[in-house]
Amino acid sequence: MNHRLQDLMQWLKQENIDSAFITSTENVFYLSGFRSDPHERVLGIVVFPEIEPFLICPSLDVHDAKESGWEYEIIGCSDTENPWEKLEKHIKNRISNVNVLALEKEHMNIERYEQLLNRFEGARFVAAEEKLRQLRLIKDEKEKEILKKAAEYADFAVQVGVNEIQEGKTELDIIAAIEYELKKKGISEMSFSTMVLTGANAASPHGNPGLTKVKKGDFVLFDLGVVYEGYCSDITRTVAYDHFNEEQEKIYNTVLKAEEEAVKAVKPGITAKELDQLARDIITDAGFGDYFPHRLGHGLGIGVHEYPSVTNTNELIIQEGMVFTIEPGIYVPNVAGVRIEDDVYVTKDGVEILTSFPKKLQIVK
Amino acid sequence: MNHRLQDLMQWLKQENIDSAFITSTENVFYLSGFRSDPHERVLGIVVFPEIEPFLICPSLDVHDAKESGWEYEIIGCSDTENPWEKLEKHIKNRISNVNVLALEKEHMNIERYEQLLNRFEGARFVAAEEKLRQLRLIKDEKEKEILKKAAEYADFAVQVGVNEIQEGKTELDIIAAIEYELKKKGISEMSFSTMVLTGANAASPHGNPGLTKVKKGDFVLFDLGVVYEGYCSDITRTVAYDHFNEEQEKIYNTVLKAEEEAVKAVKPGITAKELDQLARDIITDAGFGDYFPHRLGHGLGIGVHEYPSVTNTNELIIQEGMVFTIEPGIYVPNVAGVRIEDDVYVTKDGVEILTSFPKKLQIVK
Repeated sequence: MNHRLQDLMQWLKQENIDSAFITSTENVFYLSGFRSDPHERVLGIVVFPEIEPFLICPSLDVHDAKESGWEYEIIGCSDTENPWEKLEKHIKNRISNVNVLALEKEHMNIERYEQLLNRFEGARFVAAEEKLRQLRLIKDEKEKEILKKAAEYADFAVQVGVNEIQEGKTELDIIAAIEYELKKKGISEMSFSTMVLTGANAASPHGNPGLTKVKKGDFVLFDLGVVYEGYCSDITRTVAYDHFNEEQEKIYNTVLKAEEEAVKAVKPGITAKELDQLARDIITDAGFGDYFPHRLGHGLGIGVHEYPSVTNTNELIIQEGMVFTIEPGIYVPNVAGVRIEDDVYVTKDGVEILTSFPKKLQIVK
Repeated sequence: MNHRLQDLMQWLKQENIDSAFITSTENVFYLSGFRSDPHERVLGIVVFPEIEPFLICPSLDVHDAKESGWEYEIIGCSDTENPWEKLEKHIKNRISNVNVLALEKEHMNIERYEQLLNRFEGARFVAAEEKLRQLRLIKDEKEKEILKKAAEYADFAVQVGVNEIQEGKTELDIIAAIEYELKKKGISEMSFSTMVLTGANAASPHGNPGLTKVKKGDFVLFDLGVVYEGYCSDITRTVAYDHFNEEQEKIYNTVLKAEEEAVKAVKPGITAKELDQLARDIITDAGFGDYFPHRLGHGLGIGVHEYPSVTNTNELIIQEGMVFTIEPGIYVPNVAGVRIEDDVYVTKDGVEILTSFPKKLQIVK
């Protein structure tokens, strides 16, 4: 049995939880290797403290679920069957008392919850999210390799975007080119809506890519990532088109210094808060403290935003196997918006940077 | 006040519901014109039977909400404030008793529901979805015009895809070209993942676009749609690459006949079931009944799948102002997969077809 399922079973045992019903696409994938969006149909993994888990899914997905490597029972449910009835039966066949059930309370909707309330009358429902977030926090070797590959595609995507910059091109033109080249390499899913922002748009925390054309003397900001084998990358780079002025340069180099120093400081034992503060201090000391309105970074994995959250209030101690972004930014309205972001993996005694697109201020002619 | 809000207020009055808290991006947009994905933050419209509604949203979205035309109070909530506390206060300030609250039970998660259960102790929570689906079922003139424009972009996208077919191109290459050209026109959101399927993939109900190359003698199936001003289009066309055989032709022309006859039959007074049956009979009579495994169509609007559902069990009477797809298909494994889909608007005494890409069997050389 994989250690993820084992850990979850262990937790159920410790907490006296009779069963967990895990339903989000991300966590089902994490526990089973089966990645599927069932839309309005029911998909989930039912885990018990002592006995083997089972998976419930639409009949038409049973084959794929098996192919993905799930070794335990799979309960298929056709569109004419009631999945809740089946779920109840299969749980009650296995365990006589269901007093406490764990659910993903941020994922499951009220309509489904009411099904469970009716079928497991008197049971108490607890949240499984925090445990799953903790499990997913430390990446294994295989996950790291996939994340690295996802990061390589992100590097490639930025290069495509940079090559595309020229007079008359709009932000959406550049995004179109990036996603076109990725699709030709077989990458059809982005980890979030690709952002290419130029000039004033890059300097606004609310910028959305549109039909704005790149202009000489503007910064162009790329923030993007791909999904590769179920895992996300996330990179930001900012380049200058044709030329830049002194103030832009100062902003850029401040962000760069903050980013590089924070990356260098990553190692087991430091806290998330210390990392954020280190970058924030550099930016504040340069006089731009008011223009760095967000956290330093966020965890990365199956989700594009997961644990750890790298904020200046999170006392979490960084450990080997964590993967997160380092992405300081400065946004001075009507002057310049700059953000530089890498994905990093925490090693036994330091850091490995997964993204590798050059960071020195680059002029695109 | 717009008639949508008025209708909802009227419903609350009739059903003795004290307030409705509407939280999905789609329904908030429908009621307010404000389209925003608040991610983990709280966004919603609170409607009452007798008094003015209000909108609650993240502080940083207040400006955009105003700009979008919402005329009533907007309660902004910063990241350091508790949105549930604010919500409770603003509701209780307006009405003294909250005995019955309507929610989108398929949208709201358990975690949020528990917030409301705690803050409105003893209240009964009812589902608002069905009412909102009924409201959205009939499109007004403005919605129709937007849907028509969305359909025009879908026609354009199919044309781009057809032009792209040539030896060596993969399904993903063709998708890349389609989305590239759309982005250059300012369309950056598709209404669902674009499908370009060729040969055996098109003949499988489970086909997913990938690195399969188009091959002479194969059918190529396009199923795609765009989001334009918040509304979705959805078109399917199937073309032959270089040549086709007799069996492919028979399948194609059967689907075409089923599609055209069903479209012709659309008018107020006919039922959804009759439309589905009409197309199904044509396909069954031609000997392909077992290879048409899905409903004839689905409603279209802010959502890409909404009411009405055009199935052979739905007795719903078609009315003026409904917009839905007509999309029969035949999928014979290892032979051919063909689907033809139009978006139609029900007029006073017939139908207006919103999509217009030619449907006669076309050979791409």
